[in-house]
Amino acid sequence: MALKIDLHTHILPKQWPDLVEKYGYDGFVTIEHHAPCCAKLWKDGKFFREVDDRCWDPVRRIEDCDRHGVDVQVLSTVPIMFSYWAKSQDALDLSRFLNDQIAEVVKDRPDRFIGLGTVPLQDPDLAIQELERCVEDLGFPGVQIGTHCGEWNLDAPELFPLFERAQQLGASIFVHPWDMLGADRLGSYFLPWLVGMPAETSLAICSMIFGGVFDRLPDLKICFAHGGGSFPGTLARIEKGYHARPDLCGVHGCGAPREYIDRFYLDTLVHDPQALEFVIDLFGTDHLALGTDYPFPLGEDHPGLMIEQMNSLTVDQKNRLVGGTALEFLGLSESGFIRRSPGGS
Amino acid sequence: MALKIDLHTHILPKQWPDLVEKYGYDGFVTIEHHAPCCAKLWKDGKFFREVDDRCWDPVRRIEDCDRHGVDVQVLSTVPIMFSYWAKSQDALDLSRFLNDQIAEVVKDRPDRFIGLGTVPLQDPDLAIQELERCVEDLGFPGVQIGTHCGEWNLDAPELFPLFERAQQLGASIFVHPWDMLGADRLGSYFLPWLVGMPAETSLAICSMIFGGVFDRLPDLKICFAHGGGSFPGTLARIEKGYHARPDLCGVHGCGAPREYIDRFYLDTLVHDPQALEFVIDLFGTDHLALGTDYPFPLGEDHPGLMIEQMNSLTVDQKNRLVGGTALEFLGLSESGFIRRSPGGS
Repeated sequence: MALKIDLHTHILPKQWPDLVEKYGYDGFVTIEHHAPCCAKLWKDGKFFREVDDRCWDPVRRIEDCDRHGVDVQVLSTVPIMFSYWAKSQDALDLSRFLNDQIAEVVKDRPDRFIGLGTVPLQDPDLAIQELERCVEDLGFPGVQIGTHCGEWNLDAPELFPLFERAQQLGASIFVHPWDMLGADRLGSYFLPWLVGMPAETSLAICSMIFGGVFDRLPDLKICFAHGGGSFPGTLARIEKGYHARPDLCGVHGCGAPREYIDRFYLDTLVHDPQALEFVIDLFGTDHLALGTDYPFPLGEDHPGLMIEQMNSLTVDQKNRLVGGTALEFLGLSESGFIRRSPGGS
Repeated sequence: MALKIDLHTHILPKQWPDLVEKYGYDGFVTIEHHAPCCAKLWKDGKFFREVDDRCWDPVRRIEDCDRHGVDVQVLSTVPIMFSYWAKSQDALDLSRFLNDQIAEVVKDRPDRFIGLGTVPLQDPDLAIQELERCVEDLGFPGVQIGTHCGEWNLDAPELFPLFERAQQLGASIFVHPWDMLGADRLGSYFLPWLVGMPAETSLAICSMIFGGVFDRLPDLKICFAHGGGSFPGTLARIEKGYHARPDLCGVHGCGAPREYIDRFYLDTLVHDPQALEFVIDLFGTDHLALGTDYPFPLGEDHPGLMIEQMNSLTVDQKNRLVGGTALEFLGLSESGFIRRSPGGS
């Protein structure tokens, strides 16, 4: 069996300063440890989410990994911490704090953890500066970014220099939905997560295709969360749209959307075998990497088990999905990591 | 071969009064015939879309149908005409005008056309009144509505009496996306159609499931356009969300989303065989009906050809898809229509 790498996991510091007090304005997330191993996240006086020690305790995380046969977790912050709406210097300061904490966790157990940084996307110069620090000083293979930054979708000219610098550095970019479009219409039933996030991710991929970013940066390494959201299931519509309205979709001279599906990676977090088979048929296992959203409830309870149990996949395909693609995307080799158990399940 | 029915086609009158002048405020669509067989649609001084005589000329439509082996078209207005944002009485007046025009077209060729009305959704009492007129006076099997009405998603208590009355009447409801969520983020590349519409439709289906509408109206006949948008491709995520956050998804006591997939219909407009096979695997051909968005460019160029050419389907499945499901959904029988040609293709 291959190394089993979970490309999509989230981590928080156990504590952080009162950012509202530190920066002098509202909107930042606060953490309240209200019970042993448990904390509540608050934003502007509103309860956001309850989290537990899996969010911050590396020992607890490694216990779960051992139980599930996960050799390596790739750590990234929780998107609510992006703070792209804040003053640039404050977002840089917060990014540095979060990245330093991830670096500490990785330094203690470099055989079990890989870090992805966060950058202040609202200020591309500072974002590049922090990207460089993440890669050159902290040893991260790349960073996580959101599907947009305020009014900028990922085709915004303002963001292009960041992608360009990432390509130069060979840095990997993991794209996670946040701050979902149409939030005013998604007030009930977990809909920002169930309808908004898949749309956000499709919007991000479409923006990069139609905006010509893939054309201009052929070696950019980029991966989208949640199996690309609603992109794979609506790709045929998007393809038809490109051919039906070249005056709208082809303004930057891009090719047809299907020509770009080997230009980016997706994680495998699509929640059932039929959906994964559909995505594999389109993208191939070479462009799909295990990702589980650990430790959140909309994640995969037993990382990799679904893939391991799919009879439609060869051993080579499974190995690629659970580890090979992640290593390629991250530009890493197996050395330095230790294969622990044959699946662990 | 079965009767070939295109459930999803749009029609406009060739001319209509200046509605801005008639009702006394902006926002209504105007039509300008600028060339033979062609017209431009304008809204608030902005060019919306160019259309041609396929939009309004029944003779031209029947020629296309004959060429494509389509026996019957189901006619509904173009969603930009919904005018749910207007004053109720004006929207009722406009709905009556549009519905009367569709009724005229159907009256001339009842063997080739079936009508679906439009109703002023912003005023449920008036909407019920016009639904009743559509069914009882105009002989329509039902109406088309949008995926939302202003801030009301389809679970809004305000809209429930309309659905309840539709169930009582045995009237069919065809749901079409319009006024897409997140429009402020979808300014480029035809994105309202490629990302917004699929999300709108998923939002509409989720709202009816989680809002308990299907539980309360077990005999409601309802069909969603564009193969359910992004719903089928993200159903596994939606299902997982229901189980992960019952505190959010289960507030109205609904069951798991998969329990409801036999409670509604989808059209087949998903643009490629792989996507259609995925939707068929989930929903079965009994819940899928040919729909092409005729005469618009994001539609199916040769209605039904893709289905007819799919080797993975049996003749019975194809018959169901191209006509059987539509008849069931509309509550009609084959009598009154004439099967014209074996496929016509």
